[in-house]
Amino acid sequence: MIKAQGYAAQNAQSGLAPFAFDRRDPGDHDVVIQILYCGVCHSDIHQVRGEWGNSTFPMVPGHEIVGRVTRKGKGVTKFREGDLVGVGCFVDSCRECGSCKEGTEQFCTGGMVLTYNGVERDGKTPTFGGYSDVIVTDENYVLRVPEGIDPAAAAPLLCAGITTYSPLRHWKVSPGQRVGVVGLGGLGHMGVKFAASFGAEVTVISTSARKEADARRLGASQFLVSSDPSAMAKAMGSFDFILDTVSAMHDVNALLGLLRRDGTIVLVGAPEKPLPIAAFGLVMGRKTLAGSLIGGIAETQEMLDYCGEKGITSDVEVIPMQQINEAYDRTVKGDVRYRFVIDMKSVSV
Amino acid sequence: MIKAQGYAAQNAQSGLAPFAFDRRDPGDHDVVIQILYCGVCHSDIHQVRGEWGNSTFPMVPGHEIVGRVTRKGKGVTKFREGDLVGVGCFVDSCRECGSCKEGTEQFCTGGMVLTYNGVERDGKTPTFGGYSDVIVTDENYVLRVPEGIDPAAAAPLLCAGITTYSPLRHWKVSPGQRVGVVGLGGLGHMGVKFAASFGAEVTVISTSARKEADARRLGASQFLVSSDPSAMAKAMGSFDFILDTVSAMHDVNALLGLLRRDGTIVLVGAPEKPLPIAAFGLVMGRKTLAGSLIGGIAETQEMLDYCGEKGITSDVEVIPMQQINEAYDRTVKGDVRYRFVIDMKSVSV
Repeated sequence: MIKAQGYAAQNAQSGLAPFAFDRRDPGDHDVVIQILYCGVCHSDIHQVRGEWGNSTFPMVPGHEIVGRVTRKGKGVTKFREGDLVGVGCFVDSCRECGSCKEGTEQFCTGGMVLTYNGVERDGKTPTFGGYSDVIVTDENYVLRVPEGIDPAAAAPLLCAGITTYSPLRHWKVSPGQRVGVVGLGGLGHMGVKFAASFGAEVTVISTSARKEADARRLGASQFLVSSDPSAMAKAMGSFDFILDTVSAMHDVNALLGLLRRDGTIVLVGAPEKPLPIAAFGLVMGRKTLAGSLIGGIAETQEMLDYCGEKGITSDVEVIPMQQINEAYDRTVKGDVRYRFVIDMKSVSV
Repeated sequence: MIKAQGYAAQNAQSGLAPFAFDRRDPGDHDVVIQILYCGVCHSDIHQVRGEWGNSTFPMVPGHEIVGRVTRKGKGVTKFREGDLVGVGCFVDSCRECGSCKEGTEQFCTGGMVLTYNGVERDGKTPTFGGYSDVIVTDENYVLRVPEGIDPAAAAPLLCAGITTYSPLRHWKVSPGQRVGVVGLGGLGHMGVKFAASFGAEVTVISTSARKEADARRLGASQFLVSSDPSAMAKAMGSFDFILDTVSAMHDVNALLGLLRRDGTIVLVGAPEKPLPIAAFGLVMGRKTLAGSLIGGIAETQEMLDYCGEKGITSDVEVIPMQQINEAYDRTVKGDVRYRFVIDMKSVSV
């Protein structure tokens, strides 16, 4: 295993080309994190393959990071060496705008710094992510990971977890509500776990019946096949809240029909093309279509603490780095239950 | 003027063909209303011209009705002869579903009975609306109109008024909020008046600068020309709430860009074709797109009482029935400030 001490020099000598980017020496408020595990998010694949048109190379992907603090700047107060910590989708923000001050740094109007494929607040230094041995991050953007949970299975909480936890909390999903989760992938399976743990009656809404047993095992009490017109007709007007995790084009108007009066659909995936939305489907029943993006630092910490308390983690398949390309192909095909996580021990083998 | 007593027989004898439909004799809970004024809603034109494909003829349009009670059934407890009253878009509902019980009869799942072009709860008797001398309506679907306000200018409150009041209340528009009103027509001008009276800082958002002076007179403190890219760019991220009254196709994504984080757009018009909505515009900033439809009976009464207290009415152009065709043509062209109202004295001239 690569040791984090002397990491910059060591990286330069390691011969592991993809990981040989210099990192900054830790500033006063930085912690140096030896990465143990990093989840594979579908967005990594889009970025690596240049599908979103904004990729910059060289790139080190990965924003579902769990590791241990190995060193810290002299001004660091929140963490000590040895602490189990996480880093999610962003590593800095302006800290001055309304969003930053209100704990929704993901909407920073001054410019959130993405964990990778981004630029530091100096406007030029590229950021590199979690498919690596080490990351250096300002302590204010580092999360505490509860010691009681499996660190590999905790990694996806930093993106898939908070992306689904945040809207369920923001729209106050509560016991007895009927909640639909559309799509049972990396995000959806976490949505089911959280919504069920909040006491909601959860239905997985999926194009095929294939995942029904899994849905029930994860906490769903019902399963609705969206390609079955009679099942859809029977379910009309019955949901308080629908969490829509699908990034491909799909029929949101049909989902609006599933809501009862004053119900809400929240999109956490973003299909590339605009979705055609019939205004009538919103007007009749005073329904809401909204969006949500990851979560702020405080809420991400709240989510991790909640997971520690309830024993909630992701269902993961741990892989060595050497299998990353195969993992990408399988992720694109939906052939993963439900998240690949890279074991960073593999990078020094 | 046609007297309401013996109205059924009198209608049969009146020779006024369009008004010669029999009405039921008042049941125990019915009030007989001599109609004084009826507003001309754009939906009347769609229905009369068969543009929505569900028109049934003969038809008596009109659902912005103000009149006086001339007779009542023996079980009526809420009204007395001589009371100034109103009837809006519906005259009955199932009274048993959750929506009815919670005072949102406009979303009755058992079947709201529309004031015209609808069918009574017996499933067969057609309903006839307010372009008439008399209407007979169950007291539970009749509103009390404050005596202090101009009854002609109060008529549009029954549809245009409640359609804009309800979402502004439901989404808790409050002092200091920045509110946009898109479209300055029959609905929009009421939206401006209500939002301003609630203490919001109101901006009218319109395709042309033509209506700016009027917008300011109605209570707007700012005017935004949506066809001016630089003005739109400057206004990005600045609105808490946008009331969108436009029924034609328009760019809702541009409006989403005007919202600040956690902002809401509510559609009260329903364009015929689906609106293309970019999910990204909802996800970034956790924004909401919702719809709203008129309001329930209790809320409509609350709105009328509020209007009486604050002296709020519609800006109207009162016409005799004989000018209805010209009024329709002018309404379609947007050439009315801001609502035609038919004076029913004209039907007996």
